[in-house]
Amino acid sequence: DPKLKIFALNSNKPLAEKIAEAVGVKLGKTSVDRFSDGEIRINIEESIRGDQVYIIQSTSAPVNDNLMELLIMIDALRRASAQTINVVIPYYGYARQDRKARSREPITAKLVADMIEKAGATRIIALDLHAAQIQGFFDIPMDHLMGAPLLADYFIEHHLDEDSVVVSPDHGGVTRARKLAEFLKAPIAIIDKRRPRANVAEVMNIIGEVKGKRCIMIDDMIDTAGTITLGAQALMDAGATEVYASCTHPVLSGPAIERIANSPIKQLIVTDSINLPEEKKIDKITQISVGPLIGEAIRLIHENKPVSPLFNNRFS
Amino acid sequence: DPKLKIFALNSNKPLAEKIAEAVGVKLGKTSVDRFSDGEIRINIEESIRGDQVYIIQSTSAPVNDNLMELLIMIDALRRASAQTINVVIPYYGYARQDRKARSREPITAKLVADMIEKAGATRIIALDLHAAQIQGFFDIPMDHLMGAPLLADYFIEHHLDEDSVVVSPDHGGVTRARKLAEFLKAPIAIIDKRRPRANVAEVMNIIGEVKGKRCIMIDDMIDTAGTITLGAQALMDAGATEVYASCTHPVLSGPAIERIANSPIKQLIVTDSINLPEEKKIDKITQISVGPLIGEAIRLIHENKPVSPLFNNRFS
Ligand SMILES: Nc1ncnc2c1ncn2[C@@H]1O[C@H](COP(=O)(O)O)[C@@H](O)[C@H]1O
Ligand SMILES: Nc1ncnc2c1ncn2[C@@H]1O[C@H](COP(=O)(O)O)[C@@H](O)[C@H]1O
Repeated sequence: DPKLKIFALNSNKPLAEKIAEAVGVKLGKTSVDRFSDGEIRINIEESIRGDQVYIIQSTSAPVNDNLMELLIMIDALRRASAQTINVVIPYYGYARQDRKARSREPITAKLVADMIEKAGATRIIALDLHAAQIQGFFDIPMDHLMGAPLLADYFIEHHLDEDSVVVSPDHGGVTRARKLAEFLKAPIAIIDKRRPRANVAEVMNIIGEVKGKRCIMIDDMIDTAGTITLGAQALMDAGATEVYASCTHPVLSGPAIERIANSPIKQLIVTDSINLPEEKKIDKITQISVGPLIGEAIRLIHENKPVSPLFNNRFS
Repeated sequence: DPKLKIFALNSNKPLAEKIAEAVGVKLGKTSVDRFSDGEIRINIEESIRGDQVYIIQSTSAPVNDNLMELLIMIDALRRASAQTINVVIPYYGYARQDRKARSREPITAKLVADMIEKAGATRIIALDLHAAQIQGFFDIPMDHLMGAPLLADYFIEHHLDEDSVVVSPDHGGVTRARKLAEFLKAPIAIIDKRRPRANVAEVMNIIGEVKGKRCIMIDDMIDTAGTITLGAQALMDAGATEVYASCTHPVLSGPAIERIANSPIKQLIVTDSINLPEEKKIDKITQISVGPLIGEAIRLIHENKPVSPLFNNRFS
C-alpha cells in the first residue's frame, strides 16, 4: 500500500500543519533553505520511494521564491521515485495574468502551469482560482476547492445572514457573490464603477437594494484593498447599516492594511490560504482555516473518491 | 529581412548596454517592474513581430526573481510572434546543482534548462558553464563562450605571464587552468586539498613548482571565496612571490569581499557576467567586460556563421 506523505515548503507552514493534522499524519521531514548566494537548497530527509506525496505551497509573496521552491521540490521528488506528486496550491500566484489584456503581454498564469507540469506534478489541488479557466492551463487532473461555504458558515454562525445583502464589489464578481448569497439565502447587489468621461473621477453605481441592510461584500482576493474599501464607503453612503467584507485570499499588499483600518468595514473575514505576518493580523481581520477542508480533500483523493461532496448540498 | 533586437532585463543592464553597443544597435524599449504584491510586470514597448530577438539576463542573485523575469519575457515574446528568441545567459544560476551528489537531491540546473526551453527559447548563448555537460540539458542549439582568452589578454597586456605558473584551486579545475596556461605559455600547478582523517583540518598539498614564481589562480566562479583565499595563502607559504586570482563569474556572496580583502591575493581579475553592486567594487577587484565578446557572438549568430573563430588560434 503506497504511503500518503505531506511535505510543507516555506510559504505557509501553519496551514500545512493544520492540513496534516486533519489528515492524521505528521509532516514529512525536509529542510528547504538557501545556499550562501541565495540559491534554494532542498533536503528531503526521509525516503519517499513509491509514496503518494502531497506538497503544500502557496505561491504568495515572495512569489518567485515560493514558486521556485515548489518546482525544485517537485523535481527532487520525481527523481526520488515518488509514485504521485500532488501539488496543493492554496493561493495560486500570477493568476491575474491569465490572458493578454494588451499587446505583447505574457500569460504568466499559463507559464506557471506549464512549469509545474513540466517539473513533474501529477495532480493539482487549488482553491478559488482567480479564473476557473486556469484549470484548462493544466493537462493533469485538478481538484478545484471553494472557500465560499466556509465563509458562509462564519456569517451564519454569527447570525449575520439575516437582513443582509451580498454585494459584489465589481461586475466581474457577480457569480461569486451569487454563490455566497445562495448559501446565506440573501439577495445580491452589485457595485458598478464607471468613469463618465476621461479624466473624471469614477462614479459608484449601486445596483440593487442596500438601504437599511447589512452588506456582505465578497471577492476572491483582496490585494491593495482599494476596490473593497471604496465600495464599503459607497454602500454606507447609500444607507447600509453596516458593511462586512470577505475573501478567500488575503494578499493585502502595499496600503491594504491602512485602508482597511480606516474604512467603514466592520470586519473582514478571510481564509489562511496565505499566511499573514504578525503586522497584518489586525483586529478587524478574522482568519478562518481551510486546513480541515484541504485535509478532507486529500483524504478523499487518496481513497480515489470525488471531492465534489465537499460542496454539493452543503446547506440544503 | 528580420530585424535584430536586443532586450535587457534587470540583472545586468550595464553589460547589456555594452553588448548592444558592440552589436551597433539600441536596446529594445521595455519595462520590467513589479506589481504591488511583488509579481513581475513586463511591458514590451515596441513591436517585435517577425524579429530575431536577443534577451540579456544573468540568473545571478536574486536568482529566482531574475529567472522568472527571463521566463516571463520569453513567454511574452513568443506570444508576440518573435521569429527567434535567443537567450543570452552570461551567468547561469543553479549550475552547481547539476547532478545528484546525494539521495533525493534535485537537479535544478536541468529544471532551469527545461523551464527556459518550455517557455519558448529557440537558442541559448552561455559563458563558462560550471560544467560543460549543462549543454546537454538543452535540446535547442547552444553557443558556449569562453572567458579564458579575455582573462589571458589581461595578464599578457600587464606582462604578468612571464615567470608565472597557472594554479587550479582544486582537482576539478585542472582543465580550465590548463587552458589559461596554454594561452600564457606557462606551466600549471594544482592545489590538492585533503582531509587526512575525519575531524582533522584539511591539508593543502601543492602539486607542481610554485617557489619563486608568480601564481595565477583560475576558477569558473568565486562564491564565498574560501577556496581561493585559503589556496592563495598556501601558495605564499610554499614560496610564491605573488598571487593573482581570476574567474569568469564573480558571485562573491557572504564573506567573500572581506576574505579577499584580507587575503594575500594581489589582484582578482573577473568579468562582468555578474553585475557588481558598488559595495563589492573594491580596489583589489578588476572587472573586464565580456560585452564585446558577446556582441561579436551575436553578430556571427545573426549572420548564420559559427562562433568558434572567437576562440580558435587566438594566441597563435
Ligand atoms: N499582481 C498583479 N497586481 C495587480 N494587477 C495585476 C497583477 N497581475 C496582473 N494584473 C493585471 O490585472 C488585470 C487582470 O485583473 P482582473 O481583471 O481582476 O482579472 C490584467 O490587466 C493584469 O495586467
Ligand atoms: N548555490 C550553491 N552554493 C554552494 N553550494 C552549492 C550551490 N548549489 C549547489 N551546491 C552544491 O555544490 C556541489 C557541487 O559543486 P561542484 O563540486 O563545484 O560542482 C553540490 O554538492 C551541490 O549540492
